[in-house]
Amino acid sequence: MAKVVISLTMSLDGFIAGPGDDFDHPLGARNGMKLFDWYTSGTGPGVNNDGRFKPKGKNQEVVEEMFAMAGASLTGRRTYDIAGGWNGTHPVNGVPVVVLTHRPPKVVPQGKSKFMFTDDIAEGVRVAKTAAGDKDVGIAGASVAQQCLKAGLVDEIYIHIAPMLLGDGVRLFDHLGDDSIDLEFIDAITTPEATHLRYRVRR
Amino acid sequence: MAKVVISLTMSLDGFIAGPGDDFDHPLGARNGMKLFDWYTSGTGPGVNNDGRFKPKGKNQEVVEEMFAMAGASLTGRRTYDIAGGWNGTHPVNGVPVVVLTHRPPKVVPQGKSKFMFTDDIAEGVRVAKTAAGDKDVGIAGASVAQQCLKAGLVDEIYIHIAPMLLGDGVRLFDHLGDDSIDLEFIDAITTPEATHLRYRVRR
Repeated sequence: MAKVVISLTMSLDGFIAGPGDDFDHPLGARNGMKLFDWYTSGTGPGVNNDGRFKPKGKNQEVVEEMFAMAGASLTGRRTYDIAGGWNGTHPVNGVPVVVLTHRPPKVVPQGKSKFMFTDDIAEGVRVAKTAAGDKDVGIAGASVAQQCLKAGLVDEIYIHIAPMLLGDGVRLFDHLGDDSIDLEFIDAITTPEATHLRYRVRR
Repeated sequence: MAKVVISLTMSLDGFIAGPGDDFDHPLGARNGMKLFDWYTSGTGPGVNNDGRFKPKGKNQEVVEEMFAMAGASLTGRRTYDIAGGWNGTHPVNGVPVVVLTHRPPKVVPQGKSKFMFTDDIAEGVRVAKTAAGDKDVGIAGASVAQQCLKAGLVDEIYIHIAPMLLGDGVRLFDHLGDDSIDLEFIDAITTPEATHLRYRVRR
């Protein structure tokens, strides 16, 4: 059964993008791009097809394992738009992508990824799990992550903390209400470029 | 020369206290107390005088080192009030306490700690550094931490991440503006009870 995992890179102050994120600046108009330095700080041949991801040291294992476990992506319409639908091929193995939206686009870029659209969060998780098979559903985007957390639909949180304070931008953990959620620490991988913290969500 | 260190326990979503923190509920009216579970999860004799701090495993080393390095505390008036002036003795070795306030209290509880009051953040840091000698100035309280970060007065950030999402409460990293601050990873100590991340603030 597929696990639902929030796997995102976050500044120590909780932002997954800087202010002013849009199509031309997917991680914010300034500073936000540094969040992803850990993906590109190495000198190796690169993990993915286009060779953009060249993590250094133990970060390489982290990314390889994330790629190996990726079964489907569950994302919001805003992230889908900002990414331009990834030109039809999700950067992680061209996995299928489920997009939460009230307005499915009329035209979808053609590539390796299959795209599915729904306006119901529980349905989105169900569809993504089926698509993922025995691999993971990765949640991308703050709003979808928050909706899934509030609905009790998240199994694990895998946060990659970049060594910076962004000050402003898109907060990952926000609008969660004031009920606390207990986490169970699974493991951590620490490198100078990023700290990778994995938790199980207690239900 | 004393270092100025933000050393605080934070939930993964960035809160150092839950909602409704006051004198009777220093970490918030509900849930917030769990933030400090890592201080008390062991069965040993306890680190501090009253035996309240009983960290488990490697957390014990973390707290012992924090106690050994504590030279002075720099805090805000709100934290001072909520803590009731610690009855005159700061829980960490009774270190001297510098309180940032525009309204110095007329009566100060008598104990081991020397209390100093100022309304100027740079002056507060200067006084606390002198009091700390060759040990660290620990910053307690979100507002003072934010003011010191914005003024470029922080040397290190030592965050103890508790395995929980609080959802609401007092955010540590907030109101920082949109200039990012680069951090340099120093080290990490990971335990199931808390992840201790230490960074140098790049100037």
